[in-house]
Amino acid sequence: MTRGNRLSGVFGLFGVFGSFSLSGKSGERGEMSYKRVTQKIIDKLESITGRENVLTKEEDIEPYSHDETPQLKFSPEVVVKVKDTSQVHQLLALCNKEKIPITPRGGGTGVTGGAVPVKGGVVLSFEKMNQIKDIDIENQMVVVQPGVINGNLQRELEKEGLFYPVNPASMDSCTIGGNVAESSSGANAVKYGGTKEYVCGIKAVLPSGELIKAGGKLVKNATDYRLIQLITGSEGTLAAITEIILRTVPLPETRVDLIVPVNKLSTVKNIISKIWQEKIIPASIEYIDELTIKITKDFVQQPPSLPVAHHYLLIGVDGKEERVTKDIEILGQICMDEKVEDVLVAEDRPAREKLWKLRQSIRDALLKFSLTMVEEDIVVPRSKITEFVEKINQVCSEYSLTAGVFGHLGDGNVHLNLLKTSSCQDEWEKKVKKALDKLFKIAISMGGKISGEHGIGLVKKAYLPLVMSPAEIDIIRKTKLTFDPNNILNPGKIFDL
Amino acid sequence: MTRGNRLSGVFGLFGVFGSFSLSGKSGERGEMSYKRVTQKIIDKLESITGRENVLTKEEDIEPYSHDETPQLKFSPEVVVKVKDTSQVHQLLALCNKEKIPITPRGGGTGVTGGAVPVKGGVVLSFEKMNQIKDIDIENQMVVVQPGVINGNLQRELEKEGLFYPVNPASMDSCTIGGNVAESSSGANAVKYGGTKEYVCGIKAVLPSGELIKAGGKLVKNATDYRLIQLITGSEGTLAAITEIILRTVPLPETRVDLIVPVNKLSTVKNIISKIWQEKIIPASIEYIDELTIKITKDFVQQPPSLPVAHHYLLIGVDGKEERVTKDIEILGQICMDEKVEDVLVAEDRPAREKLWKLRQSIRDALLKFSLTMVEEDIVVPRSKITEFVEKINQVCSEYSLTAGVFGHLGDGNVHLNLLKTSSCQDEWEKKVKKALDKLFKIAISMGGKISGEHGIGLVKKAYLPLVMSPAEIDIIRKTKLTFDPNNILNPGKIFDL
Repeated sequence: MTRGNRLSGVFGLFGVFGSFSLSGKSGERGEMSYKRVTQKIIDKLESITGRENVLTKEEDIEPYSHDETPQLKFSPEVVVKVKDTSQVHQLLALCNKEKIPITPRGGGTGVTGGAVPVKGGVVLSFEKMNQIKDIDIENQMVVVQPGVINGNLQRELEKEGLFYPVNPASMDSCTIGGNVAESSSGANAVKYGGTKEYVCGIKAVLPSGELIKAGGKLVKNATDYRLIQLITGSEGTLAAITEIILRTVPLPETRVDLIVPVNKLSTVKNIISKIWQEKIIPASIEYIDELTIKITKDFVQQPPSLPVAHHYLLIGVDGKEERVTKDIEILGQICMDEKVEDVLVAEDRPAREKLWKLRQSIRDALLKFSLTMVEEDIVVPRSKITEFVEKINQVCSEYSLTAGVFGHLGDGNVHLNLLKTSSCQDEWEKKVKKALDKLFKIAISMGGKISGEHGIGLVKKAYLPLVMSPAEIDIIRKTKLTFDPNNILNPGKIFDL
Repeated sequence: MTRGNRLSGVFGLFGVFGSFSLSGKSGERGEMSYKRVTQKIIDKLESITGRENVLTKEEDIEPYSHDETPQLKFSPEVVVKVKDTSQVHQLLALCNKEKIPITPRGGGTGVTGGAVPVKGGVVLSFEKMNQIKDIDIENQMVVVQPGVINGNLQRELEKEGLFYPVNPASMDSCTIGGNVAESSSGANAVKYGGTKEYVCGIKAVLPSGELIKAGGKLVKNATDYRLIQLITGSEGTLAAITEIILRTVPLPETRVDLIVPVNKLSTVKNIISKIWQEKIIPASIEYIDELTIKITKDFVQQPPSLPVAHHYLLIGVDGKEERVTKDIEILGQICMDEKVEDVLVAEDRPAREKLWKLRQSIRDALLKFSLTMVEEDIVVPRSKITEFVEKINQVCSEYSLTAGVFGHLGDGNVHLNLLKTSSCQDEWEKKVKKALDKLFKIAISMGGKISGEHGIGLVKKAYLPLVMSPAEIDIIRKTKLTFDPNNILNPGKIFDL
C-alpha cells in the first residue's frame, strides 16, 4: 500500500483547489510539511485506542473519505475511533508531535467538505463517543458526548418534557459534535436560533493535546473569554470537542404546521411581511419551489397530497395550545387576505411527520434526480429574501441552469441547488461557476453572506475573499495558527495558511 | 505636568495588582514597554479629532480615570473623543505605532475596572458616537454607534413596536458599545438571553488600526469565522467596536411584575422549581434580600410599599395579553400553594416603573449606605442558586460581614455585595478576601464561575486561575497577542501578558 494510491482526490467541479501536497511542496501560503502515517504511528495509535478502533484497510477507510458533498473525496491514511477525552488528548498530542494532519468527524453529513481529510493523515471519528451522559431536568441542561445523533437526543429529551430545538434536515444522522463544530441550525431557527444559542459548556482538546473546559450548566457566564463562542462554529479547525453541555427549553405543548401553496413570489413576500407585522414568531417559515416539490414527491413513499403551485410555504407554529390556535387563526386570515385558495393544516403528529419527512427528503431527492448538484446556502437580510429568490430564477434562466430552490425563508437563508440533469449539458460547470459568482455578488450587495449555516469548509474557500477583506482573513488565519501552530487540525479548510 | 502626578493608582482593596509600570519594568510576564503621551502625540491626536475632542487638563480627565468600581482609579494621560470609524482607525494606528496604551470607554458604568486606564495612555471615549443610525422595522434590526445609551435605544425602539430586551440595571447610563464589549445582560435574561444573543453585525478596528466588518442584518451567518462571537464579550481587549447591528424582537403586548415576599429560602427554591415545572418562562426572576430592600427603600423617593419579609422575589412575565394573564394565574397558584400571604402585582406602567426604579437603585443605595463595597456576580447552575445564597449567608456570618444579596435568581446569577459599614471594622479587607476565596471555591465546586455578567476586568483578574487552567489561560493570552501584539488595547485586563 502506498499513500499515493489511497489519496484519491476527486475534487474537480471548479478546480479551484487543485491537488494537495504530500510533502509541503504545494503553493499554499505557509503550507505545513506533513509526515506520513507509518506502521510505527499505527502501532502507537493502536496502543491508544485498541487495535479494533484503528482502520487501515481501503474498504474500511472509504466511508471516511467523503461527507455529503457531491464529488468530493480525499482518503485518510488511517481512521481512529475514540472512546473518551483521554484518547483524544493522546491522539492529538501524537499527531502534533509527528506533524500528521487530523480531521475530526461526526456524522459525515456536512455539505462543504468540513470532515473530508483533504491532507490525508488521520480521521478522528467520534462515532463511539455517543453517550447522553446526563439529562438534568432541574437545570434543563443536557451533557452529551460529541457523537450523539441529534435526532436521538431530541427523542430522549422529549421523554423528559424537554426540547432541543435545533433540527438540521440531517438530524437523524448528524451528530451534536458536528452541529457544534459547524454551529448548525435548522428549520426551527426562526423562533429558536441555532446551535450557538444553546452551547453552555464544552470540553475540548487543543491541537497541542491540551484539554480545555469552558462554561458549564450555566445560562450566563462572563468568565471564559470567548472560548465556547470561538470554538463553536470554527468548523473543527481550533479544537476537537469531546463533551458538550446544551441548554434545552420546555417541550412546547403543541405544534401545528401549515402548507401554503401560492403562485406568485409577491404573495410569499406579503404573507411573510404580515406575519412579522402581526408579531407572530413561528418556529419555522420554510420555502420550497415547484420543481423541488415535484422531485421530492416522486422520491418519497406516500407523499402528502398537495395542490399544484409555483411556490410553497411551510409555516410551523408551536407553544401553548391556546396561543397556537390564535396564531393559526391569524395566519389563516393573512392567507385569505392574500387570496390563497387552499391552506393545508398538519395538526396531528402523523400528518406533521409526513410533511417534515417530505421536507427532510428534499436533498436526497434532488441528488437522486440529478447527475450531480452544487448546493449553496446563501443568506440575505430576511426582508430581501423573496427578491433574492427572484434573482436566483433570473440568473438560472440566463445561464439555462436547472435549480431546486428551498430553505429557511424566515431566516433569509435559501438553499440553491443547481442540478446537472444530463451529461450532454455543455459546460455545465462553467455556467454554474458564472451563475454563482453573479449570485454571490448580488447577495453581498444586499448585505448578505455566502453561507448561512453550512460553513465555508473546502468548497466555499475560494469565495471567502468575496466577503472578507484581506485584514479580516489575516486575523482569522492568525487565530487559527495561535491554536494550531503546526496546522494539524482539519487543515486546508476555510482559508489557506 | 509630569505623568507621575497624573497616574494616581488607588487600587488597594486586595493589593493583588500592586503598582503598575510606566516603562515596562513591572514584574508582569511579557509586560510591554509603553511610551508616554508627548506634546507631539497630542498634536497628532488633535489633528485626528480636532482640538476640542482631546482632553489633557487634570479636571477634564478625572471623570475618565474610574468606572463604577469602588476605590479604583488610574488616570489616563489624555482623553480622546472620537466621532467616526475613520478617527478610531487613525487613533489605533497611531497608538500601535507609538506603543501607547489605549483604553476604550463607553458609559463608564462597569464594575470590574474594564474601562479604567490602568496603564495610563489614551482613553478612547465613544460618547460622541451616539447615533442610532437605522431602525429597520422590516428586518427588526437596529444599527447603532457604540456610544448609544441602552435606555435611549429601548425608548426609540418602543416607538416602532420593537423591543431590545437586554436591560442592565445601569441601562440609563451604560452604552451599547460597552454592553457588547462586556456581553452584558440584565434582568430579562431569563427569557431573552444577554447581549451576545443579539449582536448580528459589528464594525471594529483592530489594534493595528485595520478595520474589520462581520455579520450584517442577518439572523444566521456561517461565514465570518467567529469574529463577532470572539469580539463580543472580550472586554475591549481585542478590538475597538465602532458600529453594531442588533436584532430586536416584537415589543411584548403587555408585562406584569409580581413581588413575592417570603420568609424562607426553601420557599424561594420551591417557587422557582415549580415555575420551571409549569413550563412558564418569565422574562425575569429577581431576588432581593431583606437588608437590601430596607436600604434601598430608605434611599429612593416614594418607594413602593412592601410587606416585611426575609426574601423578595420579583417575577416579571411578558408577552401576549391572554398568555400573561394565564401565567399570572399559575404563578399566583404556586405562591398560594407555598403559603405566601401577600403577592403584590404591578400591572400598570407607573406601578412597574416604581418597582423597577427600586430594583435599579439597589447598587447606588448600597454604595451610599456603606463606606465602601466589594461586589461580586458569581453564577452557579440555576438549580443550586438558593443553596448558594444560603452559603453566602453562612460564610458572611462566619466572618461577621454585612452583605446585601440580590440578583438574577432565574439565571443562577447572584450579586453579593459586601458592605463596609464602619471605619472601626477590624481587618475588613482581609475578612472580605477570605470570605470571597471560600465562596468562589464553593461556587466552583457547584459547577459555577466567578463572573456571570460583569466580566473579569481588573478586579477579578487575580481569581481567574481559580476557574481557568494554565492551558486555558495560555490560549486566551495568545489569542489576545494575536490581535494585539503590542498589547496596546485595554492592557492589564483579564490576564497578564
